[in-house]
Amino acid sequence: MSKNLTTRSEDYSKWYNELVVKADLAENSGVRGCMVIKPYGYAIWEKMQAELDRMFKETGHQNAYFPLFVPKSMFEAEEKNAEGFAKECAIVTHYRLKTDPDKAGKLIVDPNAKLEEELIVRPTSEAIIWSTYKGWVQSYRDLPLLINQWANVVRWEMRTRLFLRTAEFLWQEGHTAHATKQEAIEESEKMMNVYADFVENFMAIPVVKGLKTETERFAGADETYCIEALMQDGKALQAGTSHFLGQNFAKAFDVKFANAEGKQEYVWGTSWGVSTRLMGALVMTHSDDQGLVLPPNLAPIQVVIVPIYKTEEQFQAITTSVNELVKELRKLRISVKYDDRTTQKPGFKFAEWELKGVPVRIAVGPKDLENGTFEVARRDTLTKEVVANEGISVYINDLLQQIQESLFNKALDYRNTHITEVNSFEEFKDVLENKGGFVSAHWDGSAATEEKIKDLTKATIRCLPLEGVVEPGTCVFTGKPSSRRVFFAKAY
Amino acid sequence: MSKNLTTRSEDYSKWYNELVVKADLAENSGVRGCMVIKPYGYAIWEKMQAELDRMFKETGHQNAYFPLFVPKSMFEAEEKNAEGFAKECAIVTHYRLKTDPDKAGKLIVDPNAKLEEELIVRPTSEAIIWSTYKGWVQSYRDLPLLINQWANVVRWEMRTRLFLRTAEFLWQEGHTAHATKQEAIEESEKMMNVYADFVENFMAIPVVKGLKTETERFAGADETYCIEALMQDGKALQAGTSHFLGQNFAKAFDVKFANAEGKQEYVWGTSWGVSTRLMGALVMTHSDDQGLVLPPNLAPIQVVIVPIYKTEEQFQAITTSVNELVKELRKLRISVKYDDRTTQKPGFKFAEWELKGVPVRIAVGPKDLENGTFEVARRDTLTKEVVANEGISVYINDLLQQIQESLFNKALDYRNTHITEVNSFEEFKDVLENKGGFVSAHWDGSAATEEKIKDLTKATIRCLPLEGVVEPGTCVFTGKPSSRRVFFAKAY
Repeated sequence: MSKNLTTRSEDYSKWYNELVVKADLAENSGVRGCMVIKPYGYAIWEKMQAELDRMFKETGHQNAYFPLFVPKSMFEAEEKNAEGFAKECAIVTHYRLKTDPDKAGKLIVDPNAKLEEELIVRPTSEAIIWSTYKGWVQSYRDLPLLINQWANVVRWEMRTRLFLRTAEFLWQEGHTAHATKQEAIEESEKMMNVYADFVENFMAIPVVKGLKTETERFAGADETYCIEALMQDGKALQAGTSHFLGQNFAKAFDVKFANAEGKQEYVWGTSWGVSTRLMGALVMTHSDDQGLVLPPNLAPIQVVIVPIYKTEEQFQAITTSVNELVKELRKLRISVKYDDRTTQKPGFKFAEWELKGVPVRIAVGPKDLENGTFEVARRDTLTKEVVANEGISVYINDLLQQIQESLFNKALDYRNTHITEVNSFEEFKDVLENKGGFVSAHWDGSAATEEKIKDLTKATIRCLPLEGVVEPGTCVFTGKPSSRRVFFAKAY
Repeated sequence: MSKNLTTRSEDYSKWYNELVVKADLAENSGVRGCMVIKPYGYAIWEKMQAELDRMFKETGHQNAYFPLFVPKSMFEAEEKNAEGFAKECAIVTHYRLKTDPDKAGKLIVDPNAKLEEELIVRPTSEAIIWSTYKGWVQSYRDLPLLINQWANVVRWEMRTRLFLRTAEFLWQEGHTAHATKQEAIEESEKMMNVYADFVENFMAIPVVKGLKTETERFAGADETYCIEALMQDGKALQAGTSHFLGQNFAKAFDVKFANAEGKQEYVWGTSWGVSTRLMGALVMTHSDDQGLVLPPNLAPIQVVIVPIYKTEEQFQAITTSVNELVKELRKLRISVKYDDRTTQKPGFKFAEWELKGVPVRIAVGPKDLENGTFEVARRDTLTKEVVANEGISVYINDLLQQIQESLFNKALDYRNTHITEVNSFEEFKDVLENKGGFVSAHWDGSAATEEKIKDLTKATIRCLPLEGVVEPGTCVFTGKPSSRRVFFAKAY
């Protein structure tokens, strides 16, 4: 197959858009801003879900499901949150269509079926969930509530891009309620760490953990923890957020509990989420001009085997040998596909599986059968070697782990060489324009300065890194005193 | 704990509504007709999902995800389907809220943010999926498409009941496309059989497989296969449907393929779904006046262990013994909970786990420690016996299987004694009123008769059973000739 893929250096953005479609991950739908996640893309998302779900349950959370719709009065109860999402809400106003009296076979909205109160399609579920928690919490014995939901949400974005920014997206949202401030803060931090663990160890994407500034914080939160990743074009991508909500939603929805002394107190809350946006991060971190590169931990197919033959007899002999190998690999829980299609040539198959990012490709021809070998190719390095039949399944298993680590280390190297300390605004702009990545700079702490820098450079403060060295300095923009460096970057 | 549960004989409907809430399965939300599925209920749904998903994948299907919204013009493309769902659609007309100029802190729908084309919140996804399939199918080599989606859908029902009928519900919907009519019919039948297998073997609910009449058929289908279950009050419940769509959606969305001879043909389609409604069927089939009765295959907790003690020393000794047992049971992949709460008495715990339907309860006190025994209670029969420590994990494992089978057999007995052949309309009404269940009767095949019988008795034709004996007779209502008996019942 011919890939016809734009290269990253030609046009990174176009490369991404093409790759997502050509690798069968997703496509735009006939509905403005909404995507179709295709089976191959969805299989990757399912692997992400399974692993995250396991991690959530191991940390004591249970799944539940809350309504898609939020009545307007409920939506606006927590004012900051409502204000933050009001500009991008899909709103249900009617509940029935009727036959168009003027056009046969056409339907119109029935004006007699207007809702008494409009319903907002959830952009996030704090409002509906906290209005429910009110009924679930009476005493400190009912706390903590540790609940997660897998759901679709809708934010009416004007400019959309597959996975990165879509009107509808899939996500999980954790919503927890606690008796003390300290416990809620610990929960927010714990879930940020769960996300970092998942993104680094399963997606092979290194992240910076940090705190958002007030400007970038989730509307309705007292503090937002985040993990920030760096894409190959030097732009940052927020990969997950975990919010300490203080008592904001408890106060808005009157969620109180009787403490051990019988005194009524407001509950403390957190919420945290990651979404199908992670699919975009996955593509942009590892893939290359030949197509997708998938980390073995998330690849729906980890190993593909392609037979190379001229005669039917050779094909039969190869298939017999491959069937053995497939059995051995499956015993090690390796996901393997034998591509025995007779309608396509090996070259076509090689290109297709390269495009789809299968981590390891094994080719086997008559010569290999004679020699008792296989040709093993790595997708990440595009290198190949000849490996003896004997003990090959263990070799492949090790190789998959090696690829997983190698992808992480490569991304980590890139990330580490793309954190640049600057001490003047000239330097700031220069690094941002010519090198990209995180620009570590002093900032005076004011939203006004943050805003001005954004207007001038398009860079935003990605986070106040948790592991950053706190050292005094002067703001690169205003020269005012600063207590610590923060990370700026252009971002998705 | 005091259950205060209405009994089935007092008021079956009230018993159901109370039980769903008291057993922590679900509750009504602040959004009209929408439910909150609570963690315990959701855990059961997750077990159903996992098993169904495994079965779908084993039969060659892949998961994908399609948009929540359907533009009105797309929605109305297949006329019968559009007409069938038009009366119960949630419709998005606007995409932004703004601050109410008259009331501080309140939001109103921004009239300037009206959508050019209204969006229907999917009541089912045939329209959006077939509009997508158009781009996926060119040649016979692209077929079959075997795709499933796990999603939420919305149908604006006026009268709602937890799980049984809610405005929003969760479901899976399979949508397949085939090159031949025969293959599509086989797919519809295969999925009906997958559903029957799941409902009988996992949910322990016997079903009747059959075909719907034209009146009861899915709007847009040429044929609807269904599985029908019988609840303890003698009413039927449609547990799953599988539709042969003919070429209806292919024609509406112009989905053609080039066959092996290069000739253009319309694709043949199927769709099939089961929903959170199954949770209602589960509750109503097995549960009793003491609370839920869950089949072991779907119970989130299969075994609960309650310690009975007076002194701290006894508690410690019991816990040591229980920890061993827990380890052994987990080795057999049995889901077990040790209820070591010190805040509640054994009697309270017994009642709570009875209410929540845990299949097996083990109690252990100082006497048991001395004698090397446990007290094992079955939830389904409410019987208990003393079992020796030695080999108890295997005993429990066998017991769980026995309970699973026993629940199915009990429901099967009930079902089988509630299929009654009648040969006159007097008999028909008498059986329906005084006995309930499926009434097997001759029907003249006309929609008019079906309608009249429904008006007079509230009974609908649940299905033309596939395994029914085809024998000629005369319609119980009109006396006209009939080629076979069909099953009538009052239904949920």
